[in-house]
Amino acid sequence: MHADRISIPPEHPRVKSLYTREMLVDGYKRGLVAAEGLIAHGRGEAYDYLIGERTTKTAQRAIKAAAGMLLLSKRPVISVNGNSAVLCPRTLVELAKVTGSAIEVNLFYRTEDREQAIKAELETHGADNVLGVGSRASATIPELQSERRRVDPEGIYSADTVFVPLEDGDRTEALVKMGKRVVTIDLNPMSRTAKAAHITIVDNIIRAMPAIVEAAHEIKGSRSLRKIVDSFDNKKNLRESLKIIRRGM
Amino acid sequence: MHADRISIPPEHPRVKSLYTREMLVDGYKRGLVAAEGLIAHGRGEAYDYLIGERTTKTAQRAIKAAAGMLLLSKRPVISVNGNSAVLCPRTLVELAKVTGSAIEVNLFYRTEDREQAIKAELETHGADNVLGVGSRASATIPELQSERRRVDPEGIYSADTVFVPLEDGDRTEALVKMGKRVVTIDLNPMSRTAKAAHITIVDNIIRAMPAIVEAAHEIKGSRSLRKIVDSFDNKKNLRESLKIIRRGM
Repeated sequence: MHADRISIPPEHPRVKSLYTREMLVDGYKRGLVAAEGLIAHGRGEAYDYLIGERTTKTAQRAIKAAAGMLLLSKRPVISVNGNSAVLCPRTLVELAKVTGSAIEVNLFYRTEDREQAIKAELETHGADNVLGVGSRASATIPELQSERRRVDPEGIYSADTVFVPLEDGDRTEALVKMGKRVVTIDLNPMSRTAKAAHITIVDNIIRAMPAIVEAAHEIKGSRSLRKIVDSFDNKKNLRESLKIIRRGM
Repeated sequence: MHADRISIPPEHPRVKSLYTREMLVDGYKRGLVAAEGLIAHGRGEAYDYLIGERTTKTAQRAIKAAAGMLLLSKRPVISVNGNSAVLCPRTLVELAKVTGSAIEVNLFYRTEDREQAIKAELETHGADNVLGVGSRASATIPELQSERRRVDPEGIYSADTVFVPLEDGDRTEALVKMGKRVVTIDLNPMSRTAKAAHITIVDNIIRAMPAIVEAAHEIKGSRSLRKIVDSFDNKKNLRESLKIIRRGM
């Protein structure tokens, strides 16, 4: 968290949001986050404000379904980018452990320095086999341009389910076309990512990640896993999230 | 614009928004924009998407009133920060010229290097007397903390009207309390800035700035200036912008 580098007046009405913002800026300065990642975070902030900066019941249902989907999968992979690595490295690693998922670094703005920095951050928080870094990303996702298509043959390429928090639309759609089950976290229920994914958690990753870990612990080994996942309706869920945003305005 | 440093596939559906984004990132790399400015831009992007990435009729009314207000003022000042200097240096300088406004650099995250870089950027685009830089900012705005309160005694401090595109809530409120007429550009009609200002243009600064310059040329010298300004109702205008956003969802 590097709290020593961050100073927010504790009486500020939006202290949580400011603190998260500072974590991102700090992550940028440490070489984990891309400049474009800061802009993307701002978009998320706007939608989080609109949804009331809370985990809605609708999001809670998606969270449970997401945990169920990862637990049911044979080869689940958690795809990590700079923003998610900076905001919740510990819970990403915990989720991988409780669901038996692999962790792969997968960047929109790919540089090996940034990949290595993210890998190191995840390892600091207990990850032991981080995929996708450097020459390990030797397989390709069809229909994407250049560097953005490279994935690890032992990770995303051969996964049945990919958890891509904070992903862009092109890549989410490409993963779905490859036949992957896709789970995402996206605060904008109208985004292409939100619409393309099979399970979309419309929530702030800061709140959603600990909740997914908790849900995974809770339902692991349950007989109703399949039912939890099959009864989830993503389109309906997105419509409900949109309603909540409109009502809040 | 530094188009040589920016590469966006021209067929991309959101090419304009991506280009603007790259201008900001480039501005960050050139030392004009703060990291927090990138996040703020992201919030703006989200609201711009919601409003349909166009200048609404409601915004057009606010634009006309803003031009009128600047033309009617005795000591209007245009307050420039990193984001506005990077996104529309030319039109900021043009607006100052047509309305007889002074230009003052006024930063939320103040460093003298950044002030100097912004001043130089404005001078490159024709500004000849940029206020607020370094020791010139020797007056203070009451009720604000530390570096954020410093302003130029010849500029904002003695202004009757301050145009603060992309300003934060605390400062906008402080300026209003000082008795200034405040004009702003803010894509979020629910923000404290939007609510505190006397005239709020709910539009992307990229579209709004050339429109204000055009309006100022058009109505300059007109006998109905006072009427244009007095008939403008900011609360009503904000409600209409909010309606447009809700309808678009």
